[in-house]
Amino acid sequence: MGSRVSGRRSSPFVEPPRPAVSGDWFQSFIRTPKQSMNTADIIAKKRDGGELTSAEIAHVIDGLMSGRIADYQMAALLMAIYLKGMTTAETLELTRRMLYSGTVLDPPGGARVAVDKHSTGGVGDKTSLVIAPVVAAAGAYVPMISGRALGHSGGTLDKLESIPGFTTSLSLSEFHDALDKVGVALIGQTEEIAPADKKIYALRDVTATVGARPLMTASIMSKKLAEGIDGLVLDVKVGSGAFLKSEAEVEALAQLMVEIARGMGKDSVALITDMNQPLGRAVGNSIEVIESLETLKGGGPADLVALCRELSAEMLVLGRAALDIEKGRELHDKMIGSGRALEKLREIIKQQGGDARVCDDYRRLPTAAHEKVIRAKRAGYIGAIDTEAIGRASMHLGAGRSRLEDAIDPAVGITISAKLGDEIGPGMPLAVLSYNDRSTLDRASRFVEQAYTVVDHPIQPPVLVKLRIA
Amino acid sequence: MGSRVSGRRSSPFVEPPRPAVSGDWFQSFIRTPKQSMNTADIIAKKRDGGELTSAEIAHVIDGLMSGRIADYQMAALLMAIYLKGMTTAETLELTRRMLYSGTVLDPPGGARVAVDKHSTGGVGDKTSLVIAPVVAAAGAYVPMISGRALGHSGGTLDKLESIPGFTTSLSLSEFHDALDKVGVALIGQTEEIAPADKKIYALRDVTATVGARPLMTASIMSKKLAEGIDGLVLDVKVGSGAFLKSEAEVEALAQLMVEIARGMGKDSVALITDMNQPLGRAVGNSIEVIESLETLKGGGPADLVALCRELSAEMLVLGRAALDIEKGRELHDKMIGSGRALEKLREIIKQQGGDARVCDDYRRLPTAAHEKVIRAKRAGYIGAIDTEAIGRASMHLGAGRSRLEDAIDPAVGITISAKLGDEIGPGMPLAVLSYNDRSTLDRASRFVEQAYTVVDHPIQPPVLVKLRIA
Repeated sequence: MGSRVSGRRSSPFVEPPRPAVSGDWFQSFIRTPKQSMNTADIIAKKRDGGELTSAEIAHVIDGLMSGRIADYQMAALLMAIYLKGMTTAETLELTRRMLYSGTVLDPPGGARVAVDKHSTGGVGDKTSLVIAPVVAAAGAYVPMISGRALGHSGGTLDKLESIPGFTTSLSLSEFHDALDKVGVALIGQTEEIAPADKKIYALRDVTATVGARPLMTASIMSKKLAEGIDGLVLDVKVGSGAFLKSEAEVEALAQLMVEIARGMGKDSVALITDMNQPLGRAVGNSIEVIESLETLKGGGPADLVALCRELSAEMLVLGRAALDIEKGRELHDKMIGSGRALEKLREIIKQQGGDARVCDDYRRLPTAAHEKVIRAKRAGYIGAIDTEAIGRASMHLGAGRSRLEDAIDPAVGITISAKLGDEIGPGMPLAVLSYNDRSTLDRASRFVEQAYTVVDHPIQPPVLVKLRIA
Repeated sequence: MGSRVSGRRSSPFVEPPRPAVSGDWFQSFIRTPKQSMNTADIIAKKRDGGELTSAEIAHVIDGLMSGRIADYQMAALLMAIYLKGMTTAETLELTRRMLYSGTVLDPPGGARVAVDKHSTGGVGDKTSLVIAPVVAAAGAYVPMISGRALGHSGGTLDKLESIPGFTTSLSLSEFHDALDKVGVALIGQTEEIAPADKKIYALRDVTATVGARPLMTASIMSKKLAEGIDGLVLDVKVGSGAFLKSEAEVEALAQLMVEIARGMGKDSVALITDMNQPLGRAVGNSIEVIESLETLKGGGPADLVALCRELSAEMLVLGRAALDIEKGRELHDKMIGSGRALEKLREIIKQQGGDARVCDDYRRLPTAAHEKVIRAKRAGYIGAIDTEAIGRASMHLGAGRSRLEDAIDPAVGITISAKLGDEIGPGMPLAVLSYNDRSTLDRASRFVEQAYTVVDHPIQPPVLVKLRIA
């Protein structure tokens, strides 16, 4: 391949053209306006693993919002962040800048403390419908901005909207009013909340940079902190139905989110919780509302009841309504047992235009026309449930959406009959599909059938709360 | 930071959300059209260090040209390529696709072979003006598409255009005509040549991804291979005036470029040559034309003469005009000694509309109004020359440009009096600045003064050709 005539080896690292002299010289021969050059410098710094300063992060977010920074520059920076990471200090500053790209609500004021909970998303996760009324009934404000179903994951807004008349599209002033009157309001993200996140998320979605931990954290926290809360409980899901499957990664994400909340002056606790099977038994919209109502009435499936109790207790402590977690659990039980939590949900439904009679008459909720039972082919124990596939089946029936603009069918869904560790015999039901559109059934059935793994030996069901990070 | 309740550690690697099931499922819940999803998959593959297939690279380049792939997706992919690299096979396919995004000229045909030379850019590098006529006079076709001055680096087109009337803006059919008649033509890149490179280069320029070796290689080779050449000599510069300062990186780049040329079925040789001082003595435009003419007349500075001889010899061998390098050098000397090379340059100038009388009367070239001599402050030896700073000074006088749309002054420039290893006394000239605009002088003078390092002990001047890769 050729003979060396002379010369000395140096680093094999791919070095970009660099100025031998000062930085302004390098700028002077770049073919773009000076503003863009600063941006290219910032991209290059992150590309080479450097830590961005506050001013540099501000330049990026301000520039993105003003249009001074092009989408393609942001996309290159996002990929550099994905591959080179960000320090906690950088993530905090990114969160802060994204937060202040939009409206940040004032805390409601007075002696009451405002708290919220955020879940990283799963299948059958209807805890918000239970704990928001519980915590508000116990005296803390709950200003909750939630998301919609997407992919295999359900969304609190879609579940609530299966209640006839219920609207989650309040303006920020209506949101404030509702909070004032009821102590709790459940709405969707508005245009005013963290618009930088909206832009960045749209880019991440199409540039394979969704999964970067600092970007996930800044995205979640910038939206949640805009609610004007004093404390935030994080429910970080791990397992076959979670977006993140690796426990180490989930733990790192939870740790970072708690650090960022603290860095923004908020109390925060994260629970890492199991998502290796749907939470509770209902996966859908109206059927999840029914399961939530049952739980508020003191019934409900054991795992859902247990998780709601832990999350409520954490929120009640952060919300200064309980002195410690054990007192928080007791307070939760009291709000359920006394019916005050259910009464609070009635207030919420009325305040947000819904028909509160659904609480007592489930037939007022949309109901699917048909059912199909998926049955076990052999005897054994439920060894594993591909929970993402269950979510996928539910989405395919119409309960979820593949794109944010898709419509959903609030009536359809899946009821889980057999959960992890359950002993089954041949022909026993694994799950029941509630459907309206016959054409959706075959694919959804196949997903559910394939989601179940039956094993010969008994297995222990997973521990629900795997780790608490405080 | 919290107590582990249960669970198992797995890889700490940041894992993006991934389907537990098949790929089409993952596509089904992404909020973008299916086409974009394929693109996101490709970006994710490169992000994770995978090797892209031919079909994937074709998808990217075709999509970029059709507008189906957005600039921001391309930008994210470019950053992933910068940080994760590309194999030779990927680089070859990228080059091929970029090449065939535009017009690829046919070789001129007949028994004559077409060859060209490409330089990675430097200061005072006017070899093309000497060797293109030499090689054409010796019987090979030289279809040369060149670049313009940018930053500290000069450009063949700007030098040629300092000849009154000379045009480098030929259409491709005029280019073919000129080649037919004269055997050599020197033009700039046209819209038809590698339009994908134009798009990609514009993105690299503002996303800090210029310096990625596979991208540099594909950019250079896709343009050069469009000329319809049979062989290509690469002059890869290293040193204080080169874009790449690291010898290992330069060697890897040269090796890759030769492999890509071979992969495309072309003969190719790379010389790694010294750019730790300007080549020859003239740095500018009309003064570089004069130095080239002197060299074609048998004069010229020793380093320029030596490098032209080596590059010519390599081209003549690739062009089947010489059997080996030594015969190539003899042929080069013969073309100079007989005046045939100078005569060929006259033909080129006439063919491309220029005033060929400049060859005999340098006063017909633009001349600067004023001169300033930069003098040594103390005795010693020239130990180092910051060659990029010399290029910067020349640009600042007006001989170069910081942006492609800037105009240049063909008359101005710098003549190097003291070269590496030269012994000097106090007050002896280091360089002479030829200028028109007084306001450019102070900054340019400062750059030149600061570019020179004078040491106490004699030093060896650098070896000109450091490595030959064939």
